[in-house]
Parts: sequence; C-alpha cells; structure tokens
Amino acid sequence: MTDRVVLAYSGGLDTSVAIPFLADKTGAEVIAVAVDVGQGGEDMEVIRKRALDCGAAESVVVDAREEFAAEFCMPALRANALYMDRYPLVSALSRPLIAKHLAKAAEEFNGTHVSHGCTGKGNDQVRFEAALAALVPDVEVIAPARDYAWTRDKAIAFAEEKGLPIDVSKKSPYSIDQNIWGRAIETGFLEDIWNSPIEDVYSYTSDPSVPREPDEVVITFQAGTPVALDGRALTPFQIIAELNERAGAHGVGRLDMVEDRLVGIKSREVYEAPGAIALITAHMELENVTVERDLARFKRSVDQRWGELVYDGLWFSPLKYSLDAFIDDAQKHVSGEIRMTLHAGRAVVTGRRSEASLYDFSLATYDTGDAFDQSLAKGFVQLWSLPSKIAAARDGRLG
Amino acid sequence: MTDRVVLAYSGGLDTSVAIPFLADKTGAEVIAVAVDVGQGGEDMEVIRKRALDCGAAESVVVDAREEFAAEFCMPALRANALYMDRYPLVSALSRPLIAKHLAKAAEEFNGTHVSHGCTGKGNDQVRFEAALAALVPDVEVIAPARDYAWTRDKAIAFAEEKGLPIDVSKKSPYSIDQNIWGRAIETGFLEDIWNSPIEDVYSYTSDPSVPREPDEVVITFQAGTPVALDGRALTPFQIIAELNERAGAHGVGRLDMVEDRLVGIKSREVYEAPGAIALITAHMELENVTVERDLARFKRSVDQRWGELVYDGLWFSPLKYSLDAFIDDAQKHVSGEIRMTLHAGRAVVTGRRSEASLYDFSLATYDTGDAFDQSLAKGFVQLWSLPSKIAAARDGRLG
Amino acid sequence: MTDRVVLAYSGGLDTSVAIPFLADKTGAEVIAVAVDVGQGGEDMEVIRKRALDCGAAESVVVDAREEFAAEFCMPALRANALYMDRYPLVSALSRPLIAKHLAKAAEEFNGTHVSHGCTGKGNDQVRFEAALAALVPDVEVIAPARDYAWTRDKAIAFAEEKGLPIDVSKKSPYSIDQNIWGRAIETGFLEDIWNSPIEDVYSYTSDPSVPREPDEVVITFQAGTPVALDGRALTPFQIIAELNERAGAHGVGRLDMVEDRLVGIKSREVYEAPGAIALITAHMELENVTVERDLARFKRSVDQRWGELVYDGLWFSPLKYSLDAFIDDAQKHVSGEIRMTLHAGRAVVTGRRSEASLYDFSLATYDTGDAFDQSLAKGFVQLWSLPSKIAAARDGRLG
Amino acid sequence: MTDRVVLAYSGGLDTSVAIPFLADKTGAEVIAVAVDVGQGGEDMEVIRKRALDCGAAESVVVDAREEFAAEFCMPALRANALYMDRYPLVSALSRPLIAKHLAKAAEEFNGTHVSHGCTGKGNDQVRFEAALAALVPDVEVIAPARDYAWTRDKAIAFAEEKGLPIDVSKKSPYSIDQNIWGRAIETGFLEDIWNSPIEDVYSYTSDPSVPREPDEVVITFQAGTPVALDGRALTPFQIIAELNERAGAHGVGRLDMVEDRLVGIKSREVYEAPGAIALITAHMELENVTVERDLARFKRSVDQRWGELVYDGLWFSPLKYSLDAFIDDAQKHVSGEIRMTLHAGRAVVTGRRSEASLYDFSLATYDTGDAFDQSLAKGFVQLWSLPSKIAAARDGRLG
Repeated sequence: MTDRVVLAYSGGLDTSVAIPFLADKTGAEVIAVAVDVGQGGEDMEVIRKRALDCGAAESVVVDAREEFAAEFCMPALRANALYMDRYPLVSALSRPLIAKHLAKAAEEFNGTHVSHGCTGKGNDQVRFEAALAALVPDVEVIAPARDYAWTRDKAIAFAEEKGLPIDVSKKSPYSIDQNIWGRAIETGFLEDIWNSPIEDVYSYTSDPSVPREPDEVVITFQAGTPVALDGRALTPFQIIAELNERAGAHGVGRLDMVEDRLVGIKSREVYEAPGAIALITAHMELENVTVERDLARFKRSVDQRWGELVYDGLWFSPLKYSLDAFIDDAQKHVSGEIRMTLHAGRAVVTGRRSEASLYDFSLATYDTGDAFDQSLAKGFVQLWSLPSKIAAARDGRLG
Repeated sequence: MTDRVVLAYSGGLDTSVAIPFLADKTGAEVIAVAVDVGQGGEDMEVIRKRALDCGAAESVVVDAREEFAAEFCMPALRANALYMDRYPLVSALSRPLIAKHLAKAAEEFNGTHVSHGCTGKGNDQVRFEAALAALVPDVEVIAPARDYAWTRDKAIAFAEEKGLPIDVSKKSPYSIDQNIWGRAIETGFLEDIWNSPIEDVYSYTSDPSVPREPDEVVITFQAGTPVALDGRALTPFQIIAELNERAGAHGVGRLDMVEDRLVGIKSREVYEAPGAIALITAHMELENVTVERDLARFKRSVDQRWGELVYDGLWFSPLKYSLDAFIDDAQKHVSGEIRMTLHAGRAVVTGRRSEASLYDFSLATYDTGDAFDQSLAKGFVQLWSLPSKIAAARDGRLG
Repeated sequence: MTDRVVLAYSGGLDTSVAIPFLADKTGAEVIAVAVDVGQGGEDMEVIRKRALDCGAAESVVVDAREEFAAEFCMPALRANALYMDRYPLVSALSRPLIAKHLAKAAEEFNGTHVSHGCTGKGNDQVRFEAALAALVPDVEVIAPARDYAWTRDKAIAFAEEKGLPIDVSKKSPYSIDQNIWGRAIETGFLEDIWNSPIEDVYSYTSDPSVPREPDEVVITFQAGTPVALDGRALTPFQIIAELNERAGAHGVGRLDMVEDRLVGIKSREVYEAPGAIALITAHMELENVTVERDLARFKRSVDQRWGELVYDGLWFSPLKYSLDAFIDDAQKHVSGEIRMTLHAGRAVVTGRRSEASLYDFSLATYDTGDAFDQSLAKGFVQLWSLPSKIAAARDGRLG
Repeated sequence: MTDRVVLAYSGGLDTSVAIPFLADKTGAEVIAVAVDVGQGGEDMEVIRKRALDCGAAESVVVDAREEFAAEFCMPALRANALYMDRYPLVSALSRPLIAKHLAKAAEEFNGTHVSHGCTGKGNDQVRFEAALAALVPDVEVIAPARDYAWTRDKAIAFAEEKGLPIDVSKKSPYSIDQNIWGRAIETGFLEDIWNSPIEDVYSYTSDPSVPREPDEVVITFQAGTPVALDGRALTPFQIIAELNERAGAHGVGRLDMVEDRLVGIKSREVYEAPGAIALITAHMELENVTVERDLARFKRSVDQRWGELVYDGLWFSPLKYSLDAFIDDAQKHVSGEIRMTLHAGRAVVTGRRSEASLYDFSLATYDTGDAFDQSLAKGFVQLWSLPSKIAAARDGRLG
C-alpha cells in the first residue's frame, strides 16, 4: 500500500509547496488538512482547492471554530493562562486542536505519516509532535523545514520549477500565526529587542493612543465560562469574536515581550489578543469575588503550571488532565457579571455582582450594619504571629 | 516608674485624640512617634508639635523616606510583589517600617506599651503587632479602636470635651493610607462592589482618559534595583517620586479590586500606585531578558509567597528572610535598561538592553547568522514527549 | 425552649463530668454523642449508658467505622498524607467526621450549642470548630477546658462532689487519642525532647527490636484505594484493621517527632500507625509505577498542601475539595498489586505489578529487546542544558 | 595541533577500552582522568597506570573525597534531597563533581573533547553534559556508548584484539555506581519489577533481618552540616564514612523503587545509602526543632525542586544557585545534637537538643509552668475558619 502523509495545511506558500515536495521526497500520497480556528483570511474552500491543485490526493477542511473556542480557549480562560504573566497561549492552544484533527484524518485516510511546517527552533514543533505522540503514537512525523532544512527560498524556487499555482511574489516581512484567541507576529527588526514595534505589525487592534469614546461591556459568566455579553447569550466563539472587535477597537491586548521558549532560547514576541485579555481580566476579578482565599492562592500555582505545561506542548498529558479537574472544581461558583470599560489599550473592571459572591457587605463595611466581631482579632493576631515571635526571640538570644 | 505608651502618630484626628485617651485610660505617659514614609501632606514639624499640644510627654518625628524606599519598597520591587496579581503592598510595606521605629522609640524611652490606631478587622493591626512581637516581644500592644471599641464619633466628642487643638469639622468621606509607594482609598459607596470609583477618589493619578502626549522614560537597573532615570543617577526614593509624578500624570497604576484580607473577609479596595506599577512592569521585563527560564519559573512562586507573607504581616519572619536570600541571588544579573512609554493609564515597555542579557540574537534570529542547530530538536521533542506518549498508550490500552 | 448542648462524648472522665458541668453552667440539656472511629476500648453501649447516668438528656452512639475508613482515611491515603513528611493525620482525620455527626445531632435534636473537650493550645479545637463553622454556622461552640479553664483536677473534684458514676482513681500518665488510622500519645516525660519514648507508651505496635519471622502481604489497589489483602476482598476498615494487626505485630509505624502545631507552638508527639504507614508506603510505590512523571512531581506539592490543610482543620473547605478533585483524577490508574515484607519496624515493598503500569520493560532493559532509541538523546541533552549553558556563558563573560 | 580527548576514566573494562577506541576513532590523544569520590575498590595509582598501559597520553587521578563530601553531599543533606521522596541522589551528586575535574583537565591539557562512558538512555549522560556545557561550553562531548553504539561485547572483542591489559573474563551481572554517599545497583533480574532484590546485590549494608544489638550515635550539626559523631569532631567525609560503616552494619538505607528518569522512562533501581539516610533522617528532625513553621513548609517545596533539578543534571544552573541561597539562609540555626538508634534497617531519632531550639517547654507543657494563654485561641479559631465558613454558607445558599 502507498504511504500517505497527512499534512497540516495552511494554504500559504510553505505548506502548498510542501505537498509536491513531500510527494517527491517520500513517494507518498499527501492528504492536506486545513483547520479553521478563526484565523480569518482566505475562504476555506479556496484553500481546500489549492491543496488539490498543488497535487494533494485528498484535501479536507475542518470548521473547528466553536470547538476551538469551547474546548481550548475556555479552559485557558478558566486557568487565567498567561505564560510568563503575559502571553495568553494563542498558538499553544491551536496546535493540539490541529493535531487532533490531523490524527483523525490519519485514522480516516490510513495515514502513515503526519507532516507540519514548523522549524526546529520554535515551540510549535513540540506542540504538534507531543500531541501526535499521545494521539497516534505509531504515526511518524516529518517536519520538512527541520528534517530536510527546507527554507522559504528553496520553497519559492521549487514552486517556480514545478509551476505551482501559488503567488510567490508577495513577500510579507512578517511571520504570523493567528486564531480567534489572538495573533503572534515575528519579524526581523523586532529581533533587536531595543526596537519598539511599529503600528504596521498590528491587525487585531487599533492604535490605543488615538482618542476615542470608551466602550462599556457587561460579561456574564457561568462556572468560569462567559455565556453572555450585555445580556445577549452567545457561544464562546461569538463572545471572543465580539470582544476582539470591541476591545480591539480600543487597542486592548497588545503584548511585547522577551519570552522563554521550550527549546532553550529567549525570543522576542509581539502579540495582540484583545478578546482574550479582556476576558481574562474579567475572569480574574470574578474569581476575586467568588473564590475563597486559600483556594485562590493555591490556584495561582495551578494556573501557572497549567500555562507552562500547555506552552510546553503537553496538552494531552496526565498532569494537564488532573490540573483541569482541580480548575473545574474551583470554577463551580465562578458565576456572575463583570462590568468593564474598554478604552485606550485597557480593559478595566468597574463593577462585579454575583449570586455566589463571598464578599459580605455586613462583614466588610465600616458603616452601620458592621457584623464583624473585632474582639476576635486580638487572639488571632497573637497566635498568628507566635511562630515568628518565638523565632525572633531565639535569633535575639543567639545574637 | 510610670508606664509609657509609644503611639504610632499620624497627626490626624484619631491618633491625636488617642494621646489624652491613652493617658486617661492607662495612666501612662504617651510618646508620639510620627514616621515620614513619603505620605506628603502636612509638615512633619507641625505634626510633632500637635502631639505635644494634645498632651504627649514626648513627640518624635522620623524622616524614613529613603530608608522606606531602599529597604522596603526595593525588596518588594525585586519580588515583583503584587498581592493577588494586583496590589503592590502599599500599606503592607510601611507598617513593618513604622513598627521598627516604634520599637526603637520604645527602647529609647523605656516604653512599656505600644499603641496604634488600627481597627480589629483590617490587615494593619496584624502587620503592626506581628512586627512588634518580633522586635520587642515584651512590650504590650494597645489598639484603642479594637480593644476599647473606640470610634470616630467618640473621638470627636472626646476632642471637644477636652478642648483639643484639632479641627474636628472637616470630615472626609474617604479613609486613606498613603506613602511613596502608593495610596489606598476606602469609602462607603465603594462598599457596593457594583459601583465604580469616581474621579474624586484619586490623588496620585490624573484621569487616564484625558488625551495627552505620551511620556517616554528609560529606567536603569543594577541587580534588580533602579538606579537612574533617563541616565540621571537617583536614589530609590527619588526614582519612585519622579515616576509617581510622570506616570501619575498619565493615570498609570489605578487599581480597583476585591481583596482577601488576612482576617478572613473580602473587601473592596481602590489603590493608585503609578511609580510602583511602572517600576514593577519594567523590572519584570528586565527579568525576562536576564533571568534563566527555570529560575524565572520558580521565582514566580517565590514572588507570590513573598507577597502573601508581607501582606499577611510577616515581614520580620524567618521565611521572609530566606525568600529574600533567594531573590537577592536571582537578582545578581538583573541589570540593564528598560525604555517605557507612559500614556493613557499604561506603562508599556518598548525596549530593553543589558550587558547581562540571555537573549542571544544568533540563536533567536530566523535571518542570516542563525546559529541554532535545528537537527538537535527531533531528539529533544521525542524524549520530551515520551512520558505523555507512554501514558496515552496506557490510557488507550485500558480504554 | 430550653437550650440544648450537643457534646462530643468519649466516655472518659473529662467529657463525663462535662455533662453535669455544662448543664450547671448553661442551664441547657446535654445531648451526648459518642462516635466509634475504631478506637477500640469500651463497648459503645456502656458508653452510651454512662452519659445518661451522668445526666445527659439524650445519648447517641454512632458506628462510623466504615465511614471513617472509606471517606476520611482513604482520601488521606490517596494523598499520601504525612504532615511534615511523618505524621499520617490520625486525629486530624477523625475530628471532621465527629463534627459531622455532632452537626447531624444538632440538627436532629435542635441543638443550640456544641461542646468538645479540647484545650485551647491544641489543634483539635480548630478542627472541631472549623468543621462546625462550615456545617452548622449558627450553632455556638463551648469548649469548657478552654473557655472556662476547666481542668482535670477540677473535673475530679466535681465528679466526687456530684457522685458521678465515674472511676476517678485510675490515673493514666498518658494523654491518648486513637482511632483505626493510628494512635497519638502525649505524656509529661516526653515533653523533654531529649528523652526517648519507653516501650510502655505503645499499644498498637510490638517492640520492633524483638526478633521475629517476617510477614509478607500483597495489597491490591483500585484507583488508589486498597480493596484486597492477599487476594481476599475487604472493606477499607477491614484492611486497615488487619494491617494494624499484622504490621503492628512487627513494630511498623512508630513515630516520634517535634511537630508544628497550628496554634503556633512546637510540641513533641509520639504516634503509632502501623496500618497507615504500611498502606502509604505501598501506595506511594504503586504511584511510582503508574503515575506519569510530571503528574507525580506536581502531586507531591498537592499532597503536601492537602496534609497541611487537613492538619490545620480545614477539611470542609473549598481548597480541600479542589485538591480532592485533582487527586481523584490522578488516581484513575493507580491500580495493581504491591507485595510487602513486614518486619522489624519496617514495611518494605518487594514487588509491584499493574495492568496500568507505565514501566515499559522494552524501554528500560539494557538486555536483548531494548527498544529505546539512544540516538535521540544527544539532541535532547543539548537542548535540555541550553538555558544553563547560555547563563553560564553570560556569568563567565561578566566575571 | 593534535586533538585531545579528556576521558572520564573509572579503571573498568569499558573506559579502559575506550582509550584506544577513542584514539582510533578520532585520531586524538586521550587524557584519562579518574576521580576518587570515595567509591573504594582499586588503588587509584593502579588505575592511573592502567590508563597509560591502555594508551593514554596522560593519566591523572584526583582525590576529591573531601571536596565531594563537603561541597556536593553536604548541600544535598541541607536540602534533605530525596528524589521521589526516596533516592538520595548518589550518582547525581558525583557527576557534576567529576565534570568539574574533567573541565579542569580540559583547560590544563588543552582538551578539545571530553568523553564519558554513559549510555543514551540514562540520566548520567545528561548530568555530565549539562555540567560540561556550563563549565566548558566550547568543548565537544563524545559518548561512545551512545554516539557509536559501542557495547560491552564490542569492547571485549576490541580489548582482545588490541591485547589490552584488562581482565575481560570476570563478568559481573551487576551494573554498579558507587561513591561515599551511596551505591546504585542495576541488573537483569531486577528489570522484572515483581522480583525482589536478593542479598547478593548489597555491599554497603548487612542484612537488616539478622538479629543484632542496636548501635546508638549522637550527631552534632552546625548550620545544617554535621560536624561531630559522639562528640568527636570529624570532616564531612569522615562522618559519612563512619556512618556508612555503623548504619550499614544494621542494614540501614536499602532502597528499592521504580524511578522516573529524565529521559522519559521509568526504571527499576536498587540503592543502598546507609550514611546518607541516617544523616538525612537526623537532619530533618533537627529542622523540626529549629526551623520556624512557615519556613519549614516552604522549604519542603524548595527541597523537592532542588532534588529534581540535581537529579535532572542541572547542578551548575541559576535556579540551583538561588535555591542554595534560600537553603543556606534557612540553615543558619539548624545546629544542635540528634541522638539516633541504628538497628534492623532503621535509623530512629530518640532525642534532640539545641541552643537554637524553637521548642518552648513552657508553651508546650500541659503540666505546671504552662505559659500558653488559652484565652487567645477562641478568636484565632474563629477568624482562621472564617473564609471556609463564609464559603460553606454560600454553598449551602446555592444548594
């Protein structure tokens, strides 16, 4: 039987050229799989046909937008996932989803190999391959850019030689990955970390320094998941999309950082994630209202580990599943409404209300109605500080 | 010998009235100690005399501004201390410093008691008393508001009865604590957590929604501590003060949150800390550039614990000291420059450079000069994902 | 309506005398509740009658042995709960269970108060009262030993004065708490921490230094819970009881430590927990075989927090519930058999087997059949050590 | 200039044959470096000469016994380093030390390469190479067993062919690594994890099941480091050596476990480390006496991370250094004496005393002299349990 390579197909130059390249190199048939994760841009049907035109034996497009939002972005939101306290894991979330659909196609089409276009110095190769190792352990992976030192220049020459129906003339200086949760931009001049980004790199967000009228939005959460905007019930995908528009219009969610890659190097990354940042900001404040202190404190370390693990490509891993169990339990009561102002690059919480609130006015107020028994405090304070008091006495004694 | 109560004196109504109240109640002489932590407002000499006018046996003012900045705010900066990822520990930092000077005065004046004006439902009572327990374990603490249910109304009546030289007519609706690191505001209408703050509550920051020209600043750090602004060498206090001005002018550092108090309740807090937020933002990014990945990941949990511990009043505690040792070691190479834009409520890093940078252009670039050996990646990826691959195979096998 | 105090009743002198004492002191009727958690000793029916003889309005005994083993000891086992790496939380597990039955009785008998015999310097007061605060927040707690400075000497005098049917003559030098999970012993001469325990303090365990023939046992686990010994299906209670016998006969599970109490002091504690220690040892090794590395590493911090939280009295707390969700998920595949030798104070694992094993002979062996691809290692090693290599080069460069 | 390979030389068959093999393969001169880490066995001078007889250009032996004990084992002791709560990091500690001496030799002899005998599926390759990457980043590493698929059979054939002065006839079924901190044993029949170890695998320890008279030892610590046994001042090496004898004579420190290797597989390991286990047991209990509660709790997570990091080969890494800074600070007061009984496989603490003790008899005792103010407890308990009480009320309200 002929070998079959299932290729993660984007419709762009590199993966288009990879179709005949892989066929040449391996003698296998190529199955192109393009997954819609809300990246926008070209029509998926156009992309599907291009793969066939480039020589794919089969070409499949998957509309995974709602699945991506509900099953990948929402868990990240419940985990307040911000790698290095900043990056909302845009690409790190889509890779395991795409891998899942590659694995599905490999099973459906008897794929013997899976291929992706990632290089050998990024994180995405790890995310794809770690996911595939868990999902289809016997299928081998080919990464032409890494395994055959395949470059863009070679791809262009190859495309011209083969007369592929690809426009090789338009050359963007930017290397971009985007989906509904956000957008990542790399480009040469940003590799000098003293340079600041220019307005041109952004697409999801408007310039926050332009004066505008603020926008106000009320987000309703149920058990940690947003279910409505301004009272309108929406799906997770719709909520992210609308907030990308509205928060993006105010320049919310631009990020510029030096980041620790899993492969051991630091890189400069620029992101924009208006919806994600607005939602995470709102979610964190609703947790402040509804999650008990000790749980909230421990959840920070769970959230941090969740973010690192997913960044590091281990979505389909035992620790990820058990962290999810913790988080899901911790989200039981994270329900209620958050009011935010979107303006000038910021999403600012201005109000919160919840049936499940642990904020107790009668305990908190300093006015009439105060129900807090202050006489309890003295004993509390003294026993609370007893261990450090004893230690300080010891330290003093020993000089 | 007569008992002597050393009182943490602010110059305001409550602690002024506390002077004769404590004298009455305990028969002791009162030693007033006012500490300048950069809170601004009245002249310290005026405050010193007021205490005497109210009947204090001795009145001392301490200019602790540089000490506070260098020995309390800078360690917090090196720990990126943000309680609940938000609050830069404004009051939590000044309390142990004030306690240190109360302890010093107690030793100097043979104080048998120390007194503070905190209530029994806040954090500050714990911070004062935990610090005092460590510093002067044998000195007893009196907190009139808590221990004698002393209230503002009683204080006013008492002041009028005694004819104290205090203006009891001006009544602020706000309860405020401020120092060079920031400002905390509580007030009745904010106890409804659905209400948003009004412009009137702020003093350190201008309205960020007013259009203005951005300001750009370059901050130089040495081993985690800022040492210069725009190339001008300054003390920690001067740096914070200048950034309070400049970042405050752009509305940077306003915070509004529901917070978990140590005494077990949730409260609504509004803060403004323009300098602190700008500095922490810059410091975190310089760490991204100069701190190795594993150290950076672990330091997040150290930073979180440091913040909780100091929030919880345990500045003078063995764990705090050992966390400091970790942090100091981790800061050895956190030196370099950060360029930031201050604008519309945000302090945004736009450039970073450092002799101690771990960002290696030749490893990071995708252009000419790439020194990263991509052939290493395949083996890395496969062994990295081996444990989850084996686990997934097991899970599949067991169904 | 008459007030009713629900009393945690042990049948011993202190709580027997507490019945008329509480009636006297509060004018309330006393409802005695004795809970069998496998502590052995007197017949529960005798205990029930004694409470009535001492003046209780109602006397209830609850056989909670299976509930205690299944719902309190088994979760502790799945968490490998050893406070300070040593103490298997014997009393810390029974207190929330007893509180649950006190709360149930308070609801059934319209109790307005609950009472327990704990002092004000131990952990158990916290465990009882934190549990009761969660379960019956409106019921008030009375702790005579703490709140009325009630002492043993006063109790004896009171018992004689009232002619209570209690033998006050037998005076044990030991203060003991025991249940099926173990036994805690405090006594005067052990308060000198240089003194070693004497044979006389032990009851669940024989002297491990006496030569004996070893015993071998095979423990079968299902999802982290033991279900059989030597192939005989047994309940959790039966398993603990049998292992208490068999491991106790070899002196397994004696513990002697200085311990950090929640109330801020260090105390000397001696325990014996033969079944618990044997089970935890077996469980940990079965986890080594069946739990993936990253999950195992993180679970250690979850286990530690679980143990601290339960030690600290917070069984019925949100963090405890979410940690349980994590642990339960992590236990899904902790199934299989552990063979142990019980001898001379030690429970030593000698074999393990499991359908869910992640130990893969073909990857582990150095003999024929080795399936591990060593060529992957070089790339792994180099990228694994890249961050510290870059950092070391920086450190060298800066001198 | 001729290339020079610095070889980690043990004197055994594999590394002896590696000398001419490396010379053949690379055309380089071989510099043999043998490091004495207390592994015992052959005389180091005999080993030195054998390397020359096998064709080494230079042969160096280093007596690193005191250095290893003081600078590698003692930090591990202060960290209570037990990987997976069991394994005291025997080989993981010697590898960075040996790498340090290889690096020194590479600098001294202008080595261009370093070579070690590790396979590609173990941890030691990582430990060697991660250390070398930090110490001599420009020197290349050759691992014949991994990089040239060099096997024992090939080595024997090669030795015979070359007429090397090596006895290839004695064939141990065991693969062993040992040093003063312990001994690791691997062998074919233990790769079946249901098989138990046989007496024959052990060398540092006697059978613990043989009846003997117990031994008692008093260990004196200064700042976390043992400085005397039974009052006799000794070096770290001497202390470990004596305890290996005395605790080994009672079978203390045998370990048998399934372990998570860094390269992603689980393996079966048997260890014996009598001195290490006795010292760690004593050290942990002295920490219980002298380290404040919060510090002790946090130190557990630091200790765990330290152990993982060193196991994973990252001795010379920034995180390791900062963890050391934490630990060193935490050890300031870990001084005092621990009395232990060594018997029947167990090292049991029976007494502890310390000038720096935080155990306060007057606070702990239930007898005359009790200084603990029980009246403080009620307030403490109520505020301590307030968050879970509020949460439980919320949970109840929402059903």
